[in-house]
Amino acid sequence: MKSWIDVPPDHPFPFQNLPYCAFFSGTTAAVGVGIGDYVLDLSLLFDAGFLPKGVAGNNVFAHPHLNAFMALGRDIWAEVRAALTDLLREDNGALRDDDEFLHKALHKQVDVELLLPVNIGAFVDFYSSERHATNVGSMFRPDNPLMPNWKWLPVGYNGRASSVVASGTPIRRPVGQSLPGKAQEPVFGPCRNLDFELEMGFFTGKENPLGARVGTSEAADYIFGMTLVNDWSARDIQKWEYQPLGPFLAKTFATTISPWVVPMAALEPFRISNPAQIPPPMNYLRCEEDWTFDIELEVALQTEAMRTPQVISRSNYKNMYWNMAQQLAHQCVNGTNVQVGDLYASGTISGDDPSSFGSMLELTWRGEKPIEMTETGETRAFIQDGDTVFLKGYCQGEGYRVGFGEASGTILPASL
Amino acid sequence: MKSWIDVPPDHPFPFQNLPYCAFFSGTTAAVGVGIGDYVLDLSLLFDAGFLPKGVAGNNVFAHPHLNAFMALGRDIWAEVRAALTDLLREDNGALRDDDEFLHKALHKQVDVELLLPVNIGAFVDFYSSERHATNVGSMFRPDNPLMPNWKWLPVGYNGRASSVVASGTPIRRPVGQSLPGKAQEPVFGPCRNLDFELEMGFFTGKENPLGARVGTSEAADYIFGMTLVNDWSARDIQKWEYQPLGPFLAKTFATTISPWVVPMAALEPFRISNPAQIPPPMNYLRCEEDWTFDIELEVALQTEAMRTPQVISRSNYKNMYWNMAQQLAHQCVNGTNVQVGDLYASGTISGDDPSSFGSMLELTWRGEKPIEMTETGETRAFIQDGDTVFLKGYCQGEGYRVGFGEASGTILPASL
Repeated sequence: MKSWIDVPPDHPFPFQNLPYCAFFSGTTAAVGVGIGDYVLDLSLLFDAGFLPKGVAGNNVFAHPHLNAFMALGRDIWAEVRAALTDLLREDNGALRDDDEFLHKALHKQVDVELLLPVNIGAFVDFYSSERHATNVGSMFRPDNPLMPNWKWLPVGYNGRASSVVASGTPIRRPVGQSLPGKAQEPVFGPCRNLDFELEMGFFTGKENPLGARVGTSEAADYIFGMTLVNDWSARDIQKWEYQPLGPFLAKTFATTISPWVVPMAALEPFRISNPAQIPPPMNYLRCEEDWTFDIELEVALQTEAMRTPQVISRSNYKNMYWNMAQQLAHQCVNGTNVQVGDLYASGTISGDDPSSFGSMLELTWRGEKPIEMTETGETRAFIQDGDTVFLKGYCQGEGYRVGFGEASGTILPASL
Repeated sequence: MKSWIDVPPDHPFPFQNLPYCAFFSGTTAAVGVGIGDYVLDLSLLFDAGFLPKGVAGNNVFAHPHLNAFMALGRDIWAEVRAALTDLLREDNGALRDDDEFLHKALHKQVDVELLLPVNIGAFVDFYSSERHATNVGSMFRPDNPLMPNWKWLPVGYNGRASSVVASGTPIRRPVGQSLPGKAQEPVFGPCRNLDFELEMGFFTGKENPLGARVGTSEAADYIFGMTLVNDWSARDIQKWEYQPLGPFLAKTFATTISPWVVPMAALEPFRISNPAQIPPPMNYLRCEEDWTFDIELEVALQTEAMRTPQVISRSNYKNMYWNMAQQLAHQCVNGTNVQVGDLYASGTISGDDPSSFGSMLELTWRGEKPIEMTETGETRAFIQDGDTVFLKGYCQGEGYRVGFGEASGTILPASL
């Protein structure tokens, strides 16, 4: 099955994907759906009567974010996707032949501004790749790399939602305190060990009341879709500040996400078995369904002197020990209320092979083994001013790819 | 100077206070101001033309929270307060004699529902009482109670904004994982060591762009007012989960605040010298102005069997080592964007005397010295089901008190 919009086989947004975004066309902001190089305005589509009545009286797509649409619930998510699939189907002329409407509602992606797709309520970040936790643990605590709690629960912490930005937003190098080498006293200045973290995240589209909880078997009602997440990290600031209450300013200055949210329905063919977990998870973390996905991930780096980015890491979302359903069930087992628009990120996704590590800290092993940029001969231990970091991800189907677009950011010099 | 509304000298809401709230009168929600036992509807006051034109065209008080009002900025905060002071002045008959209007706009507080006063964007919790940090540190890390970073920066972490509730909201005892005594493996069940934390917090009413920062000298433009904060804590869950990323489920289940926000102008007479800080703070944390306040605080506990609460702790906000301006400057020194409606809490406020400790963990020293309830002979090591915890606070002026109302919550049994 194909669409009347032609999409090459290695394009991230084929007919099988249909990721959502929020975009600004120059006059209004709306929710859109991506196909090939185009974005289709769902607000206009709704107004023109192309979308199911079940979407309710209000135009939930006439917003600069996905929240109102997500809040309608899983059945409507499915209805809208089915309607879009039908409208974009090769042999359906209803939309295909309506030149006048398409002229208004179908934009080239390069012609619109892609916005932060969701008005993010809470941003929670997990720490669910065993290799990443072991790598980092061995640097910060050589004698105790993996904490005793790690295999019992998906360790996580609250992040800062206000500084989550859409791909392409420049990132100002943070300043702050750190304790260099063997110094007795901390110093103040621009972060010296600026890092990325290769992560993915999921958005929740349903709320539960405070005091209730969500079981792993209910996760599908809550999890709307996934995006790429770069949890920018200031390692020197982190090392000095993080005890005993965890990372704070080392993380809060910025987090970059892809402007595209891939609905879970598009990921269905790429669902794979959950990893074996020993010790067996407690009841509330047991998961009958598979919530692990085969998603290829890569990180590329481009310095100011380079013409094209160089891939510096290739990982896979299947390197996660704790899955999304477990993360969600854990985070609200104590009665915390999930909201429409919460972002739950995976934590850095590192595989066992060093080429799959998901941060500079791990790839260069604390900067001891800098990466060489083959095009220019430059080396990088951490991220420098003017560098751009690109995260990409896709699921490889037979003859098509379901991609997540890109989460990129260029580092601006610190302002003192 | 007095008001035409009579207020007894030990009442928390005299003419000199005029705290703000959001309330629901049975038909609509609005912003109100408290005086004595009354709440005055500012939305109706605005519609009737009693408030300054500078408040702008829209009625910012016709909302179920203070955000729109706060966003107008410090000059308008002052204008509105001046207008209210004038209208409530004993010798001003404009409002006093308008029986018809007062019948609609002046409610007894007991007749309305007090709401969460602010739509909270981010909730950040600091750890800025030296005695508290030392007490807790000595229990969790006997050989290293105060971390080396503690006197260099106001340690803090991101909390969960969605579960901040207004005083009176019942609190469900959380369930979760913990590692009892010398057990080898964690267990799952209701929290056994449920605790309160005596804190105060401030709301920001101005935003700064991502990548910029706020100096201590700009703090007055950002800090709108203060409230009482009870940062409920599950100590057994916290102990098991908190390393290495800090407290998470031990704190996210609920935080109770007073429904009243006392504007900084009302606290002006109670501003006192900042404490000496050694080592001297780095430049960005230096603070010319005094941002320490003399605010008496108390915690009372009432079991189901008791008729009246028993005071179990008396502390003072002046026990803070890091002040509000320093906390704010630190939290955005890395470029994090402050938002209108962020809540920044102090951390537990413990004084040097054991009777001033701000949590059960400290008052009973990990439960080793339970508190006796004199009325019933019951003892409490931690908080039990059916117990109600009350936080109160006030500044003592000459012949009047500027109070913060109350932050109370009753514990419901865990639901399994």
